[in-house]
Amino acid sequence: MAEITSAVDGKKLLDFCVRAFVKMGVQPEDARITADVLVAANLRGIDSHGVARLARYVNGLRDGVMVAQPDTKAIHETPTTVTIDAGAGLGQPVSYRAMKQAIEKAKAYGCGFATIRNSNHYGIAGYYAMMALEEGMIGMSTTNAAVLVVPTFGRDAVYGTNPIALAVPAGQERSFVMDMATSTVPRGKLEVYHRQEKPLPLGWATDEKGVPTADAGRVLDNFAKRAGGGLLPLGGAGEEMSGHKGYGMGLMVEILSAVVPGAAFLSGVYPKDEQGKPLPANLGHFFGAWRVDAFRPAEEFEADMDRFIRELKGGALAEGATRIYVHGEKEFEEAARRAETGIPLGPKVEASLKQIAADLGLEYDL
Amino acid sequence: MAEITSAVDGKKLLDFCVRAFVKMGVQPEDARITADVLVAANLRGIDSHGVARLARYVNGLRDGVMVAQPDTKAIHETPTTVTIDAGAGLGQPVSYRAMKQAIEKAKAYGCGFATIRNSNHYGIAGYYAMMALEEGMIGMSTTNAAVLVVPTFGRDAVYGTNPIALAVPAGQERSFVMDMATSTVPRGKLEVYHRQEKPLPLGWATDEKGVPTADAGRVLDNFAKRAGGGLLPLGGAGEEMSGHKGYGMGLMVEILSAVVPGAAFLSGVYPKDEQGKPLPANLGHFFGAWRVDAFRPAEEFEADMDRFIRELKGGALAEGATRIYVHGEKEFEEAARRAETGIPLGPKVEASLKQIAADLGLEYDL
Repeated sequence: MAEITSAVDGKKLLDFCVRAFVKMGVQPEDARITADVLVAANLRGIDSHGVARLARYVNGLRDGVMVAQPDTKAIHETPTTVTIDAGAGLGQPVSYRAMKQAIEKAKAYGCGFATIRNSNHYGIAGYYAMMALEEGMIGMSTTNAAVLVVPTFGRDAVYGTNPIALAVPAGQERSFVMDMATSTVPRGKLEVYHRQEKPLPLGWATDEKGVPTADAGRVLDNFAKRAGGGLLPLGGAGEEMSGHKGYGMGLMVEILSAVVPGAAFLSGVYPKDEQGKPLPANLGHFFGAWRVDAFRPAEEFEADMDRFIRELKGGALAEGATRIYVHGEKEFEEAARRAETGIPLGPKVEASLKQIAADLGLEYDL
Repeated sequence: MAEITSAVDGKKLLDFCVRAFVKMGVQPEDARITADVLVAANLRGIDSHGVARLARYVNGLRDGVMVAQPDTKAIHETPTTVTIDAGAGLGQPVSYRAMKQAIEKAKAYGCGFATIRNSNHYGIAGYYAMMALEEGMIGMSTTNAAVLVVPTFGRDAVYGTNPIALAVPAGQERSFVMDMATSTVPRGKLEVYHRQEKPLPLGWATDEKGVPTADAGRVLDNFAKRAGGGLLPLGGAGEEMSGHKGYGMGLMVEILSAVVPGAAFLSGVYPKDEQGKPLPANLGHFFGAWRVDAFRPAEEFEADMDRFIRELKGGALAEGATRIYVHGEKEFEEAARRAETGIPLGPKVEASLKQIAADLGLEYDL
């Protein structure tokens, strides 16, 4: 039986999230930025990173693991780089402003980079990379994340799904927007297979001995118990399908996002105190912007990007295939659809939002 | 029966290559740089990109597809970026100097980037990324390449194995050096399986209909006939194992290396004239350098990189595994071995070098 869902208006959903954050003591502007990143994920069809996470942020703010009004400060700066301490605040406002700084530096010098330490979950990586598009620039963003992924030949998860996003402007065509975890699949996909009682394809995850498994419930159970195993890097287990390459991409993201700014990395993220109580996550992020016309005239570049995208999409299809995609297309199309028809909320997400409204004394008007 | 090989001294091999390039009209300094990139690949155990390719360069120079003394010039420059036209010369000397420029820009401004158009095969991507290590910087390099890889859901190869290299300095530990093609495997691996009459794992390559195949000979035959099919992106065919992510990484490299500098991309690389005669390849490359201390004190960063590497290597092993690697380790160890015992040349490579010596009237003293 299909889940009954209600589709809600994006603007109303944004407004609800803003009110929730403000109620938790977040400054209105920060609340608006954070809500916008969440709703943008829903609009783009990435529901795992949308308002389904609002409860986690509210809980984090309530428990003090996330600071509502953090003391955010630049701790190191050069003409083209800046490192920011996020003061354990929400990841979104500090990331939004850091990407703005990277863009300003790119305007002045050709390219700009910003890194952040002492932060929290920042939502979809693509949001920040796409901010560069508004200026006709190439944008990039990466973040480290909760420990879920095993290294090649390793038994235990030691790093996160560590996404990388790159956004590149085109002329007539839609921008190229890649936003991908460096694991084969995210944890949420295992949860879906578990609910549907489907076996996992071998190459998605390993059991507590570090051996590929089809048993989603076992992997999720092992996560809860920290019993070993986890998600596999892109390319799967071992080296036959080049899982060491996905592992390398994951480490690249961990280095840029966390070692470069001096955030926690590997087992250090999401620390707990001696009583097992969570401490601030100390996640790290990385942002970059390159001015296209720092390399050659922008019109030439954009015309070439159009040609690039058209040639890819116009290629001959593999047997049984119906369409060749360029990265970002699916999300742009979904965003256009959802702007019309609203954002579908599953019953679980709807219930969680209603609970937040009840807990915080907010009107639920979705 | 194992192939009988002779192990040759790296310095002698370098000298032989220099003499070959000089004989072909290449300036001595350019010859030395190019030879060094080739021999460095052999030392690191990446024999596919070593002196096995010398004949291709000699042929390219002889046929005029590669220009021995190119007119290389910067065509666009900002404080942090430069775009260079390589004048259809060898890829290595212009890439070496471009990476030097990126490093100089990083010294002055925090980071620096160089891109190149109108170039040729530049050898191993890691060579240039590793140049940053000598300055304590993070280095990056990417290049596009001959068309061999199919897009997700596509039938025909439209882009290359498009490698990405990232080099990051540590303190006591060896540097992190990732240097990987964004296809699951390179073409050379298919050739090895074909010689050994072994079936390919499904997920490496597709047949002329775009369907995964175990038949290496068929894929290689299709390459020769341009009959369709090709290597698969990291993650394999379709989306189940997230082949679209490897495809995205390949496109990222194609954009940075070729669309950004204005080189040929997709079907435009390795063009031919109306008679089917090869024209200059017009490949593109991308180089970047970030000063570590543009983000935080270098000693802190290096100490954290040491901790990062030790924690990874010290993790629990998956059942049946013997060691967890960090990227670059295998190559550093191989380089140390080969510096002692020499570089093993297979009989085919040895024969090709002897042929070059005979053709060019060089002493063969290896």
